[in-house]
Amino acid sequence: MIYADNAATTKISPAAKQAMLDCMEEYWGNPSSLYTLGQKASSCLLNARETIATCLGAAPGEIYFTSGGSESDNQAILSAAHSGAAKGKKHLISTGIEHHAVLRTLEHLGTKGFDITLLPVGTDGILDARDVAAAIRPDTALVTVMSSNNEIGTLQPIEEISRICREKGVIFHTDAVQSAGHLPVDVRKSGMDMLSLSAHKFHGPRGVGVLYVRKGIPLEPLIYGGSQERGKRAGTENLPAIAGMAAALKEATERLDSTIPYVTGLRNQLIEGLSEIPGSRLNGCVQSRLPGNVSFCFDNIEGEMLLLLLNQRGIAASSGSACASGSLEPSHVLRALGYSPELAKSALRLTLSESNTKEEIAEIIKNVREIVEYLRNI
Amino acid sequence: MIYADNAATTKISPAAKQAMLDCMEEYWGNPSSLYTLGQKASSCLLNARETIATCLGAAPGEIYFTSGGSESDNQAILSAAHSGAAKGKKHLISTGIEHHAVLRTLEHLGTKGFDITLLPVGTDGILDARDVAAAIRPDTALVTVMSSNNEIGTLQPIEEISRICREKGVIFHTDAVQSAGHLPVDVRKSGMDMLSLSAHKFHGPRGVGVLYVRKGIPLEPLIYGGSQERGKRAGTENLPAIAGMAAALKEATERLDSTIPYVTGLRNQLIEGLSEIPGSRLNGCVQSRLPGNVSFCFDNIEGEMLLLLLNQRGIAASSGSACASGSLEPSHVLRALGYSPELAKSALRLTLSESNTKEEIAEIIKNVREIVEYLRNI
Repeated sequence: MIYADNAATTKISPAAKQAMLDCMEEYWGNPSSLYTLGQKASSCLLNARETIATCLGAAPGEIYFTSGGSESDNQAILSAAHSGAAKGKKHLISTGIEHHAVLRTLEHLGTKGFDITLLPVGTDGILDARDVAAAIRPDTALVTVMSSNNEIGTLQPIEEISRICREKGVIFHTDAVQSAGHLPVDVRKSGMDMLSLSAHKFHGPRGVGVLYVRKGIPLEPLIYGGSQERGKRAGTENLPAIAGMAAALKEATERLDSTIPYVTGLRNQLIEGLSEIPGSRLNGCVQSRLPGNVSFCFDNIEGEMLLLLLNQRGIAASSGSACASGSLEPSHVLRALGYSPELAKSALRLTLSESNTKEEIAEIIKNVREIVEYLRNI
Repeated sequence: MIYADNAATTKISPAAKQAMLDCMEEYWGNPSSLYTLGQKASSCLLNARETIATCLGAAPGEIYFTSGGSESDNQAILSAAHSGAAKGKKHLISTGIEHHAVLRTLEHLGTKGFDITLLPVGTDGILDARDVAAAIRPDTALVTVMSSNNEIGTLQPIEEISRICREKGVIFHTDAVQSAGHLPVDVRKSGMDMLSLSAHKFHGPRGVGVLYVRKGIPLEPLIYGGSQERGKRAGTENLPAIAGMAAALKEATERLDSTIPYVTGLRNQLIEGLSEIPGSRLNGCVQSRLPGNVSFCFDNIEGEMLLLLLNQRGIAASSGSACASGSLEPSHVLRALGYSPELAKSALRLTLSESNTKEEIAEIIKNVREIVEYLRNI
């Protein structure tokens, strides 16, 4: 099998799996317990928090462990909205191409009296930071813009948006689920107030993520109960997954110098190859793009058929977000780029990792070309 | 080490760990993906859902996977509160001895205009079901009462409360985190509308739980986003943990016939032994009690010192809830039983599993006796 859907999920790395096993066998006490077994777990938790903080340029006290990217996004947005509302600020700004974890949370807040502005992006999928500046009002509580798009891989001008929000005194959250572990993330340098990430997107375990919250930014729990995570996230800490995430993020961060050029090389090889197919077009932007993301549309092709035939040939790919797979609706991201529903439904997303090879890329190009020709002929 | 804090967390079972490893190595695709690897994961998820439903006497469509007991409790309570509020019902009923995941969520709702009634329990920690009947009002949206207490192990008259709530048309939720895997749980027979459980309390993985919701009962998401869990819980399914939980619950359920009498025997041996210590008293009820729970208070003893000295002798125990460890406050559960703060602070909780032995119990009795005498003499 050629696996080219790393934006949906990745295979857990041996180091992350080993860290989990160590916790299950050795450090399996409840980190809140006072006896030795619990304190060993507590110290393991502390180490993981420090490792992750270091990878992100944050302080350990700014790291909150959650069950994943969706929970992090929900908590960040709901918390900022509620703390804004307490001061009479009920305006929230985002874009039309966010992940559903952001969009559905905003929709929910829209039914509770919040005013939501979804900024448009260019046909290349990039948000103009000046549009953020123009949209901010005195009653704006939050700007939330993803660091990189999960479908078309475009990178957003996060540092510029951070600067604008800082100047205007508005909280800025970014969903960095697709960026973390794939590009350098430095919260100090980039300046965002809150950031979400998910471990299973960078060869870490499923069911665990981080919400980074800059010191001084108010945070409200999403899950009430015990005093874990300084009272901001109740529930026995998922130590095996947290330790696995720390191992995976450390590994990914240390290897960025080699993985970024390697994966970018594969991506460019794939983009070049698929561009030669008649009636094909690259979605998103060539330059400002995740190293591993390739997204194409093909004239007169039903994307789902293309995926099924690729699967028959042992190639795992997707049309877009796995969270929306099986949905009959065309991608909201491609629609926001101005695509017709028909064109949007022809989308093919191939997301690469350091495990892919040049030979696999050549194989993907050959097969996509053959299947597109075949489908157009029947 | 003698581990006697199984209510805080348990060691993962070999079967549960193996199920996790199988998912990480073999079924690691995203269950929402359409290609073979994703569909293998999807079918594994389906099997886990069916196994868990069978263990609980539920239908698979009534099982929602969450990140654990706290999340399940939060979602159940917030959902019932909001759906009640939409019909003008803003009264919620519970008890003063619930887990913090329930109490803090209710407190939060109390600040949002909900009216909370916390029913008192007897000195044995048992709620009188007639008090529930008397407390229900036309505007009552929810009754939430735990199946068994995490500190003192008392079992509540859940079937009777279910019947009363059913008759009065009020949603009934129970936190069964301490019961599931330790006593038979049959949602049809018991009749509750919603039930929370957590895998790591019965030798399953950390960071995963279930919210059972009877068909026809409305459910609102706590985490918005993708369409996982029929649109009620967003986020890539934590398949390794879910499969591990299914393996652990199946194993625990199949073994109940032997573990209940075995663990109950150990518990009774321990209760008898500790009762012989002068100035000791059993907390909770002798008869209506979790098989593995032993909870004592000792006159003129500082519980934390007792725990530290037990730990020095290789015995892992706790004063009460791990979620509240390190807190200077005496247990809210023991206070609700009418204990003075001083007496409540002398609490020792020993929670047993099928891994404990008679020899360990004798060892615990000997050491507790010696330490209590020592502490009273200094």
